Amino acid sequence: MRFSPVTMALQVDPLIRSALQEDITSEDVSTNSVMPRPCPGQADLICKQDGIICGLPVFCRVFELLDPQIQVDPEVSEGDPVRAGQRLATVTGDIRAILSGERTALNYLQRMSGIASYTARTVQLLDGTGIKLLDTRKTTPNNRIFEKYAVSVGGGNNHRYNLTDGVMLKDNHIGAAGGVTQAIEAARAYAPFVRKIEVETENLDMVREAVEAGADIIMLDNMDHDQMQEAIALIDGRAEIEISGNVTEERIPALRDLAVDYISSGALTHSAPILDVSLKNLHPLP
Amino acid sequence: MRFSPVTMALQVDPLIRSALQEDITSEDVSTNSVMPRPCPGQADLICKQDGIICGLPVFCRVFELLDPQIQVDPEVSEGDPVRAGQRLATVTGDIRAILSGERTALNYLQRMSGIASYTARTVQLLDGTGIKLLDTRKTTPNNRIFEKYAVSVGGGNNHRYNLTDGVMLKDNHIGAAGGVTQAIEAARAYAPFVRKIEVETENLDMVREAVEAGADIIMLDNMDHDQMQEAIALIDGRAEIEISGNVTEERIPALRDLAVDYISSGALTHSAPILDVSLKNLHPLP
Amino acid sequence: MRFSPVTMALQVDPLIRSALQEDITSEDVSTNSVMPRPCPGQADLICKQDGIICGLPVFCRVFELLDPQIQVDPEVSEGDPVRAGQRLATVTGDIRAILSGERTALNYLQRMSGIASYTARTVQLLDGTGIKLLDTRKTTPNNRIFEKYAVSVGGGNNHRYNLTDGVMLKDNHIGAAGGVTQAIEAARAYAPFVRKIEVETENLDMVREAVEAGADIIMLDNMDHDQMQEAIALIDGRAEIEISGNVTEERIPALRDLAVDYISSGALTHSAPILDVSLKNLHPLP
Amino acid sequence: MRFSPVTMALQVDPLIRSALQEDITSEDVSTNSVMPRPCPGQADLICKQDGIICGLPVFCRVFELLDPQIQVDPEVSEGDPVRAGQRLATVTGDIRAILSGERTALNYLQRMSGIASYTARTVQLLDGTGIKLLDTRKTTPNNRIFEKYAVSVGGGNNHRYNLTDGVMLKDNHIGAAGGVTQAIEAARAYAPFVRKIEVETENLDMVREAVEAGADIIMLDNMDHDQMQEAIALIDGRAEIEISGNVTEERIPALRDLAVDYISSGALTHSAPILDVSLKNLHPLP
Amino acid sequence: MRFSPVTMALQVDPLIRSALQEDITSEDVSTNSVMPRPCPGQADLICKQDGIICGLPVFCRVFELLDPQIQVDPEVSEGDPVRAGQRLATVTGDIRAILSGERTALNYLQRMSGIASYTARTVQLLDGTGIKLLDTRKTTPNNRIFEKYAVSVGGGNNHRYNLTDGVMLKDNHIGAAGGVTQAIEAARAYAPFVRKIEVETENLDMVREAVEAGADIIMLDNMDHDQMQEAIALIDGRAEIEISGNVTEERIPALRDLAVDYISSGALTHSAPILDVSLKNLHPLP
Amino acid sequence: MRFSPVTMALQVDPLIRSALQEDITSEDVSTNSVMPRPCPGQADLICKQDGIICGLPVFCRVFELLDPQIQVDPEVSEGDPVRAGQRLATVTGDIRAILSGERTALNYLQRMSGIASYTARTVQLLDGTGIKLLDTRKTTPNNRIFEKYAVSVGGGNNHRYNLTDGVMLKDNHIGAAGGVTQAIEAARAYAPFVRKIEVETENLDMVREAVEAGADIIMLDNMDHDQMQEAIALIDGRAEIEISGNVTEERIPALRDLAVDYISSGALTHSAPILDVSLKNLHPLP
Repeated sequence: MRFSPVTMALQVDPLIRSALQEDITSEDVSTNSVMPRPCPGQADLICKQDGIICGLPVFCRVFELLDPQIQVDPEVSEGDPVRAGQRLATVTGDIRAILSGERTALNYLQRMSGIASYTARTVQLLDGTGIKLLDTRKTTPNNRIFEKYAVSVGGGNNHRYNLTDGVMLKDNHIGAAGGVTQAIEAARAYAPFVRKIEVETENLDMVREAVEAGADIIMLDNMDHDQMQEAIALIDGRAEIEISGNVTEERIPALRDLAVDYISSGALTHSAPILDVSLKNLHPLP
Repeated sequence: MRFSPVTMALQVDPLIRSALQEDITSEDVSTNSVMPRPCPGQADLICKQDGIICGLPVFCRVFELLDPQIQVDPEVSEGDPVRAGQRLATVTGDIRAILSGERTALNYLQRMSGIASYTARTVQLLDGTGIKLLDTRKTTPNNRIFEKYAVSVGGGNNHRYNLTDGVMLKDNHIGAAGGVTQAIEAARAYAPFVRKIEVETENLDMVREAVEAGADIIMLDNMDHDQMQEAIALIDGRAEIEISGNVTEERIPALRDLAVDYISSGALTHSAPILDVSLKNLHPLP
Repeated sequence: MRFSPVTMALQVDPLIRSALQEDITSEDVSTNSVMPRPCPGQADLICKQDGIICGLPVFCRVFELLDPQIQVDPEVSEGDPVRAGQRLATVTGDIRAILSGERTALNYLQRMSGIASYTARTVQLLDGTGIKLLDTRKTTPNNRIFEKYAVSVGGGNNHRYNLTDGVMLKDNHIGAAGGVTQAIEAARAYAPFVRKIEVETENLDMVREAVEAGADIIMLDNMDHDQMQEAIALIDGRAEIEISGNVTEERIPALRDLAVDYISSGALTHSAPILDVSLKNLHPLP
Repeated sequence: MRFSPVTMALQVDPLIRSALQEDITSEDVSTNSVMPRPCPGQADLICKQDGIICGLPVFCRVFELLDPQIQVDPEVSEGDPVRAGQRLATVTGDIRAILSGERTALNYLQRMSGIASYTARTVQLLDGTGIKLLDTRKTTPNNRIFEKYAVSVGGGNNHRYNLTDGVMLKDNHIGAAGGVTQAIEAARAYAPFVRKIEVETENLDMVREAVEAGADIIMLDNMDHDQMQEAIALIDGRAEIEISGNVTEERIPALRDLAVDYISSGALTHSAPILDVSLKNLHPLP
Repeated sequence: MRFSPVTMALQVDPLIRSALQEDITSEDVSTNSVMPRPCPGQADLICKQDGIICGLPVFCRVFELLDPQIQVDPEVSEGDPVRAGQRLATVTGDIRAILSGERTALNYLQRMSGIASYTARTVQLLDGTGIKLLDTRKTTPNNRIFEKYAVSVGGGNNHRYNLTDGVMLKDNHIGAAGGVTQAIEAARAYAPFVRKIEVETENLDMVREAVEAGADIIMLDNMDHDQMQEAIALIDGRAEIEISGNVTEERIPALRDLAVDYISSGALTHSAPILDVSLKNLHPLP
Repeated sequence: MRFSPVTMALQVDPLIRSALQEDITSEDVSTNSVMPRPCPGQADLICKQDGIICGLPVFCRVFELLDPQIQVDPEVSEGDPVRAGQRLATVTGDIRAILSGERTALNYLQRMSGIASYTARTVQLLDGTGIKLLDTRKTTPNNRIFEKYAVSVGGGNNHRYNLTDGVMLKDNHIGAAGGVTQAIEAARAYAPFVRKIEVETENLDMVREAVEAGADIIMLDNMDHDQMQEAIALIDGRAEIEISGNVTEERIPALRDLAVDYISSGALTHSAPILDVSLKNLHPLP
């Protein structure tokens, strides 16, 4: 996922605006009490931890929506590795808008950079295996577009965006359909044909049925290492394979030897700690 | 903060609805492909980690907004300590709505419980000191109401909700006003009188000026232990005192001996890991 | 596509509400001028042309949103063939809401039934060939969900829903990427892996490149019959094939002999005439 | 109806934005996969059928909302007759925005031009009679402003915009009021006095009552030719007269000899086939 | 204007919801701090001034939107004259919702009753003249539907609702068209034919031109008594006549002798003092 | 309260846009009928009564939102005293947008100036006493930000903005808590600590309890002069004091001698008559 100007205008702007209205319900009372007039100033965006920076376009956009005159001059590029103490950008413009937008801009930047950094570390653990790291739908409500984008920037890949744009047949879908074969056939008949059909399997019997019924992707959910080896042998290249289930940075090394296509990890978006970034040295300009 | 029916109707419902529309942009294609008709069923909400449960009203409301017939029967109360393996609730109703709402409902519940659990652990570290633990505005965009509520449920206290409802004078406000005294006077003249005036101080000079100018609350920002001791002596009961700056679970014990009123911690909302909770054993009912 | 209660609540209701507000900007002045009080009544929904009925859930929902007491009792099922003169349903409730909702309810029902009827006729022309009929994105703005659903009800299949949920590489994408192979590789690396990759081809060279680069689906766009025959031979089962380009009811018979998987037709949604349906015999109940 | 900048800003922009969000729920995945950076380009807007062009301001606005830098240079004016093969405009700017907006822009332009073309043909059939052609409320939900505008551009006249801004008393209003006279009196007493009162009549008795009760406009609904002649004689200039009921292009010639003021036709907006227009020859600019 | 259930659902509810969100941006902190649980109670709605009560359906709806269980039992009817000290209704239900909704409910009721009362007094001053009293567009932003409704309840009549649903040609329209006749002709050709054409005149020349050009309504704007007499003679029944310009309760008596159809008064909506109404005696129920 | 660019963008613009859509539901039919093309012109904003001008930024913004080219050149500053006949500003730009925005712009300006003027007169009556004049929550729904701002401009002070940002404990809160002390303790434990606690008292017993329980502010509600004197003596500087209850311009002089901090007056926002201001001399520019 990339944030083209189209995505910014249609999807990102309304969410940022709503976030700003959450933080300012009628006015920024502290700023307005001491600054009745515009006051040109400048601040430095400083990184306080090593990591991958992500969310600069969102950081800029927060200020632009408050005041189109504010200028953010980045000194790094989106996705760059950054180090504690490094200056990432300068923000120049009316101090009132800088103060009013600071927290919202940083809240986005810190979370997105945290996810990108965590993803990058995790991707590195898979280096040389050819296995791709995937995110999940375990994202923060009303923040999915930011979080999936951050996974991309960190070098991960995106799984389906939501319930609409991907077919994943679970236990209950299979039960309702009357079996794996019937569920796959129903999905193939029903879903827009541009979607692949993925089946979530919990044991080897389900794997066998899924591969025979022609599933495009088979997810091995919460299986142990031996089971996964057997499942991979059983599938034998007839479907793409995704591993899932409590995958964190710590568990990845033990999965490196598996001949699978994808490992998905909810932790990328639900458990990445933030990357500490802050605005420093805000000062008036003459 | 409590979630009264009024808060649910006015603030929570629109956010949940928006989160559901993020996850379902036109339809739940997997569910719709195999279930053309209502299908009564039941699932168990199971806790997979020890912690404090938080967000049950939101969890219920997600399903209610999709299908008013869905019934959630909780076996624990909001804020209860829960243990790995414990069943927290049963969800009964049309399996289609259970499947379509599951991820959004859990995304809320896991994050809110994570924050409540982290807060509860941190509060306990202050037990016996009389110091209150505060949250900050370092919340996830468009999720502040959920996150501040979770801090409450975990036993923490809420700082100001946003830039509108509290006055906090920082470096730049003070600079713009021409000094601490002038800034406090400007705020007192300008802000609705029901707000206390808080001043963020970085050194003892600022503390001295703030207390003399009649600040209601003085924040000691990123000071070391000795500086804080001096500041507390200097303030001498003439203002409430808040300690701030990279406060995490780990740093709390070293702060127990300080005679302050409040310790605020951004980590409560920006770094609490989720509490793992999931829907299990979804099965059709006869 | 089916209209489950979830889809109704999340996607359909807001659009219906907006349509009603388009037709009633402050009040229904005619109805309010003569009916100060509720007035129970009943009307018949009568079909005035032969066709396939589609949109009954939307028809009902328009009235329910105006007045939850209104009852619609259908005498046919969604997707049934209907005949001129046939009564399709009775509508019972406060005449004020029946009058205020009538036009919006019928505007939806007529258009959706028109599309379903046209689709059904076109699908029949492909009977016995195994070729599936697809819709396109040539839908009426802010009505896509209704129109794609109507294609389903008429027996057609849905192509991708929008620009987000399907990859279709056209001339310019290929140009920007530097060739068919590069475009497919870029898409495979970038897009969520649950999406198939479709390439729009205009000549045999493009077809050849696409099939060799591993496209999942190849669209033959605006080719003549001979070209299509050659393309099909060239693809030789290595990709799914979609035919596109000014496909109308009239042109279908000439395409029956082609060994393709899909034929897509913009006409289904942009040129289907409405099916004439109206509310008759509205009368007060004692 | 004209699209002044005021109408564009207040009514048209929100509908276009919503249409774009319908087609792009998170991103244009095909375009974003191959074009990470801006790419200047140009395309031709080509007409593929003879007709009346309508919707150019909407066509332009779709692109402007995605990217303010996109430039559309029209070679024809709104409402001009155009011929198959004619170039109508060039579109210049970032190819990403051109690709992302193309379908939505064309969906509007094709429908609006289709309505304007059909209206123009129908208006011509009334040439020399002094009878004005009217549209109805049988418009596509959430598209009324575009469709009524297109009728104007095609030379037709607009009937009331919606249930709020015109009084039309039908059978049931009359029944509820206790008779034609009572209904007209109630409406005159109730409705803002700037509205004329129209009565829908189905037989000569109703016509007689309406004209005697002082209706400003009398609609002859679904009457045969003889009945209409009698009604016109009976009204004798005391009210304006509108003919209504399944009026299509084909039926107009038979109505030319009637001394009425208006003929209204739902077909203008519910049955006009689209005018085929497309973007061709999109190519990068050096 | 009447508030039918349709108007309530489509126009009134969204405005009330927005008003409630203005008064409660995250929670009612006072109520939530002392009432963690539902608490059944009851209060009396007491009138503190003589006047006309208006807005009871809005008053009820405010509470219903907060809590569907709240019950309002009115003891008077909408539009009834009420006296200081009179109990108008009892409100029964969860005290939390009563406290949270009280101010918003009363803010509507007081303003609407104020307008209805002022209108009723003014209408009475015209008693026996046959002249109708009209409101204007000088309403409070985002409150027009409430204020025009209140004028109706007070016995006044509604002028056009907004710029869309009525034609009023002023000086500048006439100037742009090139004269009164041209302006009227342009409007007649352009505007939906169900609208009457009104011309605002400032002197007798304009009146003469307007009446000759066939204006349906002629407004005499800010003329003195003699001018109006002359204008009326000049019009001589050929158009309806509206008097306008700083019409307040005080000026009405001097206008009683004029043979005009309408007098419009901006004061009805912009200067009516509120009617004092309050909730009293809120007490818990056993 | 001040209207910084941030407040304008986040809070004011959406309300103005909604007000414009209330006045123009599809188009300004009068203007569009005579002005098919832009028409440059100019008008004078003239004051017709003496008072305080307030709302100029809103007045400008109404036009800017309709047409960014419109220029308003003020000749006075926000909050200036103005006199009948004085020109306040010139408005230059496309006459179409001036005509379409005129009423909405003036509706805001007149109301806001009316409130500022009334407030200024009332503040003056307290001159020399040190007592501050406060507004209340008795504002017009969906107009609070404009009305509270106008009170500021008129020299008044703002009470809490809404139910979220201030604690005010009334009779029923106290009853629910089980007494004044308990209510204050509950609020102190629950509410964000940056809020002061205010208690509304109706008699001396309540005053005594409140002051002893440590209320920050005590409101004397509807007490007579003697009671207030006693209450003030009883409080004896231990809490801030607010007087409330039917405070109008007329009653203020009798309150001057009371040693209180604040007098709040609902009349400032619910009963201030408008200040008459209008656009005059709109004429085309060559």
